[in-house]
Amino acid sequence: MPNENLLKQIEFIKEIDKIKYIQRRTKLLNSDRNENDAEHSWHLAMMALVLSEYADEKVDLLKVIKMVLIHDIVEIDAGDTFIYDQNKNHENTEEELKSAKRVFGILPEKQASEFIELWTEFEEGTSKEARFAKSMDRLEPLLQNTSNNGGTWREFDVKYPTVYEKKKVIKKGSAELWNYAEKLLDASVEKGILKK
Amino acid sequence: MPNENLLKQIEFIKEIDKIKYIQRRTKLLNSDRNENDAEHSWHLAMMALVLSEYADEKVDLLKVIKMVLIHDIVEIDAGDTFIYDQNKNHENTEEELKSAKRVFGILPEKQASEFIELWTEFEEGTSKEARFAKSMDRLEPLLQNTSNNGGTWREFDVKYPTVYEKKKVIKKGSAELWNYAEKLLDASVEKGILKK
Ligand SMILES: [Ca+2]
Repeated sequence: MPNENLLKQIEFIKEIDKIKYIQRRTKLLNSDRNENDAEHSWHLAMMALVLSEYADEKVDLLKVIKMVLIHDIVEIDAGDTFIYDQNKNHENTEEELKSAKRVFGILPEKQASEFIELWTEFEEGTSKEARFAKSMDRLEPLLQNTSNNGGTWREFDVKYPTVYEKKKVIKKGSAELWNYAEKLLDASVEKGILKK
Repeated sequence: MPNENLLKQIEFIKEIDKIKYIQRRTKLLNSDRNENDAEHSWHLAMMALVLSEYADEKVDLLKVIKMVLIHDIVEIDAGDTFIYDQNKNHENTEEELKSAKRVFGILPEKQASEFIELWTEFEEGTSKEARFAKSMDRLEPLLQNTSNNGGTWREFDVKYPTVYEKKKVIKKGSAELWNYAEKLLDASVEKGILKK
């Protein structure tokens, strides 16, 4: 007899292959090629792994890594929302919750609930792990844009105060990384790749 | 004063962006597009997360995930070796070890050693975590090839006994997943997408 739970899990594993096609606005480092959600999620997991010592409060690293690995799976149905989009709120939308329920709902019940809770916790930023995971999510595009001559800031004419406001999320997870991020922003203004 | 360790860690995070350009032979599910190493590593991490209950021995999940996240970083210098390449041994080559030392060596010393050890342990398959991580690494292309009408098996004329031999690695990590994998192989022979 086939293991029913395993079949559901394999179906889920196949379904999430789709995030490899979801393009982000940001480009790879020193590149013109857009990053996709799978590459982005892998990179955030590596960053969490390497940088966890800078979390303000000691975090459960496995939980942080789970969060960043799954955080964009909801975009399979809901699509990527650009962080500097003026017309759309980047916060947890109904559409994303619906997607979370459908895609994670492919899994056996207990696992589905665990993933939906993890994703919700990440979105709401209500734990130290969620705050540190969000720091990673804001830091990666900062490294990309500074390596790409301003990247999406220049492409979509986003100015310093807006960028600063979005990046401040890093501070909630790590004072040390925020200190580094602020310096990168200042240097970007000096170089003229980010306008005041 | 800038934190010297942090600067090394950021340099490493930037360096590993390169695996997003390393193409594997296998294609995405139901697709003609080659998978890259970052996408592959993300998918293995998700598989480990979802399937860890099937490990024969209870594994340290964080360790397994670390292994699959970093296992292909050595390909930055050494390149991807195709598992069915007749002329090249897929095992831990000198070239890969050299690459591990250079790339992980960008990190602060303690972290560099930890990652080199993790990678070596994965390559040698000497722990239950390494064995389960390797099961993931063999299972993913099986899902891809069966969804792609035989994929690399047909493209490179690889026959059942060779595939069976390579896939048997799954058994060392999980009897249950091996049972499933064997059924997929049998079904592939029946469908004519894998030749006896
Ligand atoms: Ca996103």
